[in-house]
Amino acid sequence: MTKVTVLYPNEENKNFDMDYYCNTHLPMVNKLLGDTLKGASVEKGLGGAAPGSAAPYAGIGNMYFDSVEDFGKAFGPNAEKIMGDLPNFTDIEPIIQVSEVM
Amino acid sequence: MTKVTVLYPNEENKNFDMDYYCNTHLPMVNKLLGDTLKGASVEKGLGGAAPGSAAPYAGIGNMYFDSVEDFGKAFGPNAEKIMGDLPNFTDIEPIIQVSEVM
Repeated sequence: MTKVTVLYPNEENKNFDMDYYCNTHLPMVNKLLGDTLKGASVEKGLGGAAPGSAAPYAGIGNMYFDSVEDFGKAFGPNAEKIMGDLPNFTDIEPIIQVSEVM
Repeated sequence: MTKVTVLYPNEENKNFDMDYYCNTHLPMVNKLLGDTLKGASVEKGLGGAAPGSAAPYAGIGNMYFDSVEDFGKAFGPNAEKIMGDLPNFTDIEPIIQVSEVM
């Protein structure tokens, strides 16, 4: 299984609208990627390793696909639309990780 | 649900022994944290956003708990033992994120 993780670093003076992310952006992504997207989840950063420290990431989005090829085929034609929605909820540049679930 | 993510940045000239991580480190963590740990998974970095680019993280470990308090209670007394095992599989300093699963 392939996992695509989108991490939004918790930078000072940057914004991340979790409401829009959960209720507008992800439903749009879900609709665009269709059945190829096997599952998705969202995380809201609470903290870091030390008690009281800031979360390294404001938000993290997780998407699951059967294969890297499936991800590419589903994401490629929709990349512009998906990435174009980012300014509507954040001014953070996300880190994108493609992983194999072990 | 609380998720604790341990991310190992994919730095040049650094090592990450995925075999040891999956087959020795995580079983040890699993045993130490006991029933408080509700689930765990491991990811191996394959790539980044651009085709052919390096994965931002060599490996990612995910652990699930009922609450931040549960994580603290289970991890605190075992932190030294768990963190002390890191040099056995990597010289990368991990990023630790505590998240709320939305």
